[in-house]
Amino acid sequence: MSTIDLNSDLGESFGPWPMGDDAAMLDVVTSANIACGFHAGDPAGILRSLKAAAERGVTVGAHIGYRDLVGFGRRNMEPTDAELTADAIYQIGALQGLAAAAGTRVAYVKPHGALYNTIAHDARQAAAVIAAIKAVDANLPLMVLTNAPVVQQAREADLTVICEAFADRNYMPDGSLVSRTRQDAVLHDPAEIAQRMLRLVREGRITAIDGSDIELDAQSICVHGDTPAAVSIARQLRVDLSAAGVALTPFVV
Amino acid sequence: MSTIDLNSDLGESFGPWPMGDDAAMLDVVTSANIACGFHAGDPAGILRSLKAAAERGVTVGAHIGYRDLVGFGRRNMEPTDAELTADAIYQIGALQGLAAAAGTRVAYVKPHGALYNTIAHDARQAAAVIAAIKAVDANLPLMVLTNAPVVQQAREADLTVICEAFADRNYMPDGSLVSRTRQDAVLHDPAEIAQRMLRLVREGRITAIDGSDIELDAQSICVHGDTPAAVSIARQLRVDLSAAGVALTPFVV
Amino acid sequence: MSTIDLNSDLGESFGPWPMGDDAAMLDVVTSANIACGFHAGDPAGILRSLKAAAERGVTVGAHIGYRDLVGFGRRNMEPTDAELTADAIYQIGALQGLAAAAGTRVAYVKPHGALYNTIAHDARQAAAVIAAIKAVDANLPLMVLTNAPVVQQAREADLTVICEAFADRNYMPDGSLVSRTRQDAVLHDPAEIAQRMLRLVREGRITAIDGSDIELDAQSICVHGDTPAAVSIARQLRVDLSAAGVALTPFVV
Amino acid sequence: MSTIDLNSDLGESFGPWPMGDDAAMLDVVTSANIACGFHAGDPAGILRSLKAAAERGVTVGAHIGYRDLVGFGRRNMEPTDAELTADAIYQIGALQGLAAAAGTRVAYVKPHGALYNTIAHDARQAAAVIAAIKAVDANLPLMVLTNAPVVQQAREADLTVICEAFADRNYMPDGSLVSRTRQDAVLHDPAEIAQRMLRLVREGRITAIDGSDIELDAQSICVHGDTPAAVSIARQLRVDLSAAGVALTPFVV
Repeated sequence: MSTIDLNSDLGESFGPWPMGDDAAMLDVVTSANIACGFHAGDPAGILRSLKAAAERGVTVGAHIGYRDLVGFGRRNMEPTDAELTADAIYQIGALQGLAAAAGTRVAYVKPHGALYNTIAHDARQAAAVIAAIKAVDANLPLMVLTNAPVVQQAREADLTVICEAFADRNYMPDGSLVSRTRQDAVLHDPAEIAQRMLRLVREGRITAIDGSDIELDAQSICVHGDTPAAVSIARQLRVDLSAAGVALTPFVV
Repeated sequence: MSTIDLNSDLGESFGPWPMGDDAAMLDVVTSANIACGFHAGDPAGILRSLKAAAERGVTVGAHIGYRDLVGFGRRNMEPTDAELTADAIYQIGALQGLAAAAGTRVAYVKPHGALYNTIAHDARQAAAVIAAIKAVDANLPLMVLTNAPVVQQAREADLTVICEAFADRNYMPDGSLVSRTRQDAVLHDPAEIAQRMLRLVREGRITAIDGSDIELDAQSICVHGDTPAAVSIARQLRVDLSAAGVALTPFVV
Repeated sequence: MSTIDLNSDLGESFGPWPMGDDAAMLDVVTSANIACGFHAGDPAGILRSLKAAAERGVTVGAHIGYRDLVGFGRRNMEPTDAELTADAIYQIGALQGLAAAAGTRVAYVKPHGALYNTIAHDARQAAAVIAAIKAVDANLPLMVLTNAPVVQQAREADLTVICEAFADRNYMPDGSLVSRTRQDAVLHDPAEIAQRMLRLVREGRITAIDGSDIELDAQSICVHGDTPAAVSIARQLRVDLSAAGVALTPFVV
Repeated sequence: MSTIDLNSDLGESFGPWPMGDDAAMLDVVTSANIACGFHAGDPAGILRSLKAAAERGVTVGAHIGYRDLVGFGRRNMEPTDAELTADAIYQIGALQGLAAAAGTRVAYVKPHGALYNTIAHDARQAAAVIAAIKAVDANLPLMVLTNAPVVQQAREADLTVICEAFADRNYMPDGSLVSRTRQDAVLHDPAEIAQRMLRLVREGRITAIDGSDIELDAQSICVHGDTPAAVSIARQLRVDLSAAGVALTPFVV
């Protein structure tokens, strides 16, 4: 039987400002990437999200980001190696503490936003994040963009890697994501999205933007919960995958 | 043979701004209270302090504070219970992560500044801090002001308590500190300070501001490193205590 | 003909986190209290709010707060006089700069949240805010809670004072607000609210919680826009006041 | 008679963390670049620096930076145009407010650190800063690196430009600074520095790293005060320029 992990970003509120529909998404995903306070998330809100995830049996990961709250970690930054490694350890440790208080544990690490995109191909920043994980707990898997250079780099550093695909994104023939600057970067049809992901799970293949078939190595599928439409797409994906006999299970139990 | 712990605040730099003489103080103290990022300390600087402490074999504690960087955690605040508990867990966890990376571990928790003074007598905020420690690791001792109501409150909550005395402060007949608003709040003579602390270690007694003798229950003595004079006082205290046969050892090894 | 000012809090988004329905409220109010970045508001968002207000001809005021983003300025703090005065000047100046860029100007100052409540009765912090206004522009009116001690204090310091009443709040017989800890603190019926405010505008009187009549000196009425229900109440109030022949005009044009 | 402006960075303390010797540098410079709170400076400290500058008759400028306190504004960032323009206006406005309170006024704008280096050649970010100045006060001069593309760009936008040279830096034959990655980037001999700057003031020429003569258009010379050695160099430069009959006057009086 085929299995796949569904992950989404949670815990992204900050103080009085809510973001996303954590409750809805916890019914959809098997893994929740929880903000750690640098790009989003305040400790009390993070703790609430961790408790909610623990209650639903959803695995949690540390969603680490650049120290850029107003920019939501979406702006490129150039921290030194020492800064980036220490910032990553700090965030992972903080989430580990809160996870312990919530009766769960941090099961993986996923970089967020600009950090996610940067380490996909920037070996220097990738090395700093890898060093952080190895320093705090070398057994923590790193969730990254499938087909990106960071996959090999992390494996060579003896980290377990969770390769992820994006449910609502189109892919280039080389397996990279179609740039968001293009109109056709994002998919909106729930049925199409579910069909594509079902094929990905079963065959490890997906149709690229030019109609060609490409192979994607993916142990997790990223879904979004930041809009009602996104929540609907994620729900439908879960329903369709389950109906097709795919077991939805976290990469790390 | 008598033993005592000497503790001081370290890791209080922030980004480009240094504070204190960590290197000097690591030769003096047996326990280092390391800032956790809320009132002082950035991750890279905290990690450097932790590594330096680990190299010298100095025990480290989580010096947690209010989220008030510009005020250095010295201004009274009124977080809710949920906020304070989560803020404390977040800081302890972050330091645990960095300590693991530095090859050491967080051995105790000491609140800083206004939080330290507030929980000494404010049962609500004390309870929130106690709840944080129990949630993240119930075996972590809490370092607090000796003779304050929080000592009993923490013990009743089954926490181990490290009572501390201040080397350079005068005491009221009831065992409380002479207010800093008074001229005679702080002592400056290294020899007098060392004599007072030696008597405290041997007899558990100290002379109060009115000349009366009072009992102080102290397992640790707090010394300061924020000025060259303070460093000198701390150094002399260590020399004099050692010369008198007192074993300087951390409360938690 | 009677006139009154309607004011509300705007510009309270922060980075990716929206708050309130600024567009809707700009059709209701004559004065907009714009966040200045300490409790809410990032510069780009503040500038958008100021431009929107300028386009609608809505007067803008500097909504200054404590430096407590995660707490939204709602937590009591104890800055020193020097800190509070400088923090207030900084915020007013920042908003003046952005207002100039938006083609408008800061016409008054209104403290936010815990700072608003504190200076209503705390003469020390009130003096620090008053000193800030006098230092940056002594002609800027200060908007405060009617019937509170700060009204007299500010007038004795030669500031123009805008006394405000709250449309949806019940009042005690002494003219103070019914505490939010009581169930009956807040009114929810739009028609009742409009009737109460109409009488306030015409007669300067309102019915207190015990049924007695009290005098309220108010040049502005505060309405809220943080929920759809609040927006509806505010809209209805504007319609009813206008229908009754009340001219809605900002205190400062 | 030749004249030149001497400028330096001041007001860079933050909360409990001091930086630099403002008092010493105010006896040396004619213009003080005052931090505005984004890369350094808290409002109370900024106000103290502004008052000290006003007392000495030293002109003040807004030293605007990226929103990166822990990185001291020295890390490259990529804010959007809207973010950078609003951030710059916010900082200039805040300093204008504090300057008014200190009895002085903001006389020019100088970007700091990574923002300074970036706008020297990055037309997009330069345009965002230029737009900010024009929006808040089109008469405010912009102080930038001489010989850099931003000089022409700002002039074409009708801004007054203050070109500055660095007293302690070596120059390439093309008029650019020798990279700090090279050993010979920085000069340390006070007499050599003074001789170079005297020639620059009198002839508009300086000897480049390869021995060739280059022309530099400079209305201001930047000196540093972050170390005792730097303060000595700056003092000596002032003495030597004055002794040679050069009038030290701010670009903007």
